Amino acid sequence: MKIYRYPTKDTWKDLVKRPVLEQKEISELIAEIFAEVKKNGDKALTDFNKKFDKADTQSISVTEEEIENAENLISDDLKKAIRQAKENISKFHASQKQEIQKIETTKGVVCWRENRAVEKVGIYIPGGTAPLFSTVLMLAVPANLAGCKEIVLCTPPDQNGNINPAILYAAKLCGVSGIFKTGGAQAIAAMTLGTESIPGVSKIFGPGNQFVVAAKEYAQRYGVAIDMPAGPSEVLVIADEQAVPEFCAADLLSQAEHGSDSQVVFITTDLKVFDETIGAIERQIKDLPRSEFAGNALENSSFIVMNSIEEAVEFSNLYAPEHLILALGDFEKYIPEVRNAGSVFLGNYSCESAGDYASGTNHTLPTNAYAKNYSGVSLDSFVKKITFQHLSEEGLQNLGKTIEVMAEAEGLLAHKNAVSIRLKSL
Amino acid sequence: MKIYRYPTKDTWKDLVKRPVLEQKEISELIAEIFAEVKKNGDKALTDFNKKFDKADTQSISVTEEEIENAENLISDDLKKAIRQAKENISKFHASQKQEIQKIETTKGVVCWRENRAVEKVGIYIPGGTAPLFSTVLMLAVPANLAGCKEIVLCTPPDQNGNINPAILYAAKLCGVSGIFKTGGAQAIAAMTLGTESIPGVSKIFGPGNQFVVAAKEYAQRYGVAIDMPAGPSEVLVIADEQAVPEFCAADLLSQAEHGSDSQVVFITTDLKVFDETIGAIERQIKDLPRSEFAGNALENSSFIVMNSIEEAVEFSNLYAPEHLILALGDFEKYIPEVRNAGSVFLGNYSCESAGDYASGTNHTLPTNAYAKNYSGVSLDSFVKKITFQHLSEEGLQNLGKTIEVMAEAEGLLAHKNAVSIRLKSL
Repeated sequence: MKIYRYPTKDTWKDLVKRPVLEQKEISELIAEIFAEVKKNGDKALTDFNKKFDKADTQSISVTEEEIENAENLISDDLKKAIRQAKENISKFHASQKQEIQKIETTKGVVCWRENRAVEKVGIYIPGGTAPLFSTVLMLAVPANLAGCKEIVLCTPPDQNGNINPAILYAAKLCGVSGIFKTGGAQAIAAMTLGTESIPGVSKIFGPGNQFVVAAKEYAQRYGVAIDMPAGPSEVLVIADEQAVPEFCAADLLSQAEHGSDSQVVFITTDLKVFDETIGAIERQIKDLPRSEFAGNALENSSFIVMNSIEEAVEFSNLYAPEHLILALGDFEKYIPEVRNAGSVFLGNYSCESAGDYASGTNHTLPTNAYAKNYSGVSLDSFVKKITFQHLSEEGLQNLGKTIEVMAEAEGLLAHKNAVSIRLKSL
Repeated sequence: MKIYRYPTKDTWKDLVKRPVLEQKEISELIAEIFAEVKKNGDKALTDFNKKFDKADTQSISVTEEEIENAENLISDDLKKAIRQAKENISKFHASQKQEIQKIETTKGVVCWRENRAVEKVGIYIPGGTAPLFSTVLMLAVPANLAGCKEIVLCTPPDQNGNINPAILYAAKLCGVSGIFKTGGAQAIAAMTLGTESIPGVSKIFGPGNQFVVAAKEYAQRYGVAIDMPAGPSEVLVIADEQAVPEFCAADLLSQAEHGSDSQVVFITTDLKVFDETIGAIERQIKDLPRSEFAGNALENSSFIVMNSIEEAVEFSNLYAPEHLILALGDFEKYIPEVRNAGSVFLGNYSCESAGDYASGTNHTLPTNAYAKNYSGVSLDSFVKKITFQHLSEEGLQNLGKTIEVMAEAEGLLAHKNAVSIRLKSL
């Protein structure tokens, strides 16, 4: 835990720096995996499952039977929770649909945009220490709402060749069209190139380890788009004297438990809240099964005392956190001042977990200061907005001269001629 | 000109292929240019101007005086045209602003999105054969509407060290905050890293040659976002018996004149329109100053006869053109069938030039089949959509159990605890 009291502005530049990620040279390995998947398709994936996941998967495709069985393997409580989360995520993302709005920019010239789904999308769900069925909801729900025709999900099998049943249940519930047992860079290669079982897609979503991240970057060489660049998860909490230290501590720990590289920043104007939050963290961390991750993350965390909330928000905009919690009595006042953040949680009862799982907002968000130039995943991420325009004869007469003059000034005479030849015909 | 009559569907896969772009190994050169700009800042840019543009630029910044003079150097007709174009582009992009829409997903749980401008953006305008002041409008107008605080424009100087006055006029009119005389990869490096004169930005927009394209890709390593991946410009025209061959020919040529690598596809169901369009191209091309470019582009163009408009639209969706012209009597019928395209022009009077310059739609569009997974530039390109949420005590009571159950099932107990500790306090 690094403690800063009233840091002067000239030091902020250093305080907002993320740790430089160790860039292992894995690009050759990624290229080899892509080549292997291109050459041997499903067989390559089966072999990689043996090699990397110690799993004997005779078939890469998850069967209908496996999906049906999954429903019996998870509790009614969990199914109910997943359904409520799905409903909220659906409601919020459905509200992002836009009506077509035709604009007559000049009399006779009508322009508008229409949304079209990215037809084939791929969702990657990591294996590892947590079965992230919540990420299935966050990606498959908007994909389905957007009208994506093909929603492909890849996730690594466990050592018995199985997929976590909650992942299967969530995938079925949200209209995923194919679930496949393959993980890591090879899964990204499969969704990029296509195999006998797995359809190639146009856009790939989802989190993963350094191999998955590097493979998603590599996939772009094949014309595939990705959701956004990746980095470790982050939270920045701004607390005033009305914040509850126990709540702040719990929120900071819920970020810290993600992994040793999680980024945790706490800023308060209140010395009592400052001390008590640190005390509460020390108490709460003891009971956590993932206390080792959390402890490591907290070692690199920043705990800052500042003079004013205005200053704290300014610092936050410079940091551009993935998650921003405004544990403030008068949070409304500061909403307009938030300029760079992925998702913002307001007041004492809006914990980050709510957005991570069930409130309805998306939890796939920009990290590593990308909140300055990227949005989180939304319905928009699954559609293209195509512009349409219609010029009537009158429209062309009203606008034609302008186009001709501009085209000529740019030295593009064929552009001018496309107008002139029409005007002459009228 | 490659002619295909009634190609069977199994051949389409080859017909929609773009020529493989010659990928010259320029990444080392780009890295060197970035290193040089990082080390020597403005001085590096001045030196590059001498080396690459044969220009002696004492100052990288364009002065107020130069900008004011520009107004006197261009005709009133051109100024008027630029102003009308700006007005239409403003109207259309302003209509893309979204009202904040608060959604109560569960009683007491309110979620919404708010737009925030990308604070610092960079616009690259190429030099070369055409002074693309129209691209200044297409990028600076939405940047300004979005509320970007800093709008930086870089463009290479001519051999006298000057910038085309129409570019300066358009930049001033559209609220560009700084204009700088630097081009090529070094301009992208300057906007990425910042120099004494040029502020570093978060997102870079604009077209360019292979060095600019490679530099924009390289810039992403520094956390900078870019508008979209780039390829040569494209048009696909679908014409029925109601199309006017002279118009079709003019539209195809206006695409072809961009450069020798421009992609031109013409599809019709009508043999008379087919023959007459080819005849009209042969006549019209003779008068074009850029007939050499156009001729080269046409050599690689595809002219296709198909059985039905349905089939042509299906082919177009597979091709995913940057520009799609539906020169059809009943174009309305086919709008819902268009799934992959950058911008669509409807009927006989909606020539591509209209959208290139003045109708109001943006001309920065996805090429090289990226219309399958990317949108063109719009107001959205200059903002991030930040999600906000507020849970009241009641909201957390209504949603808490769901979050707890899901967090526990993912093995993230600190996430669960952030809810439990609050529920207990109520």
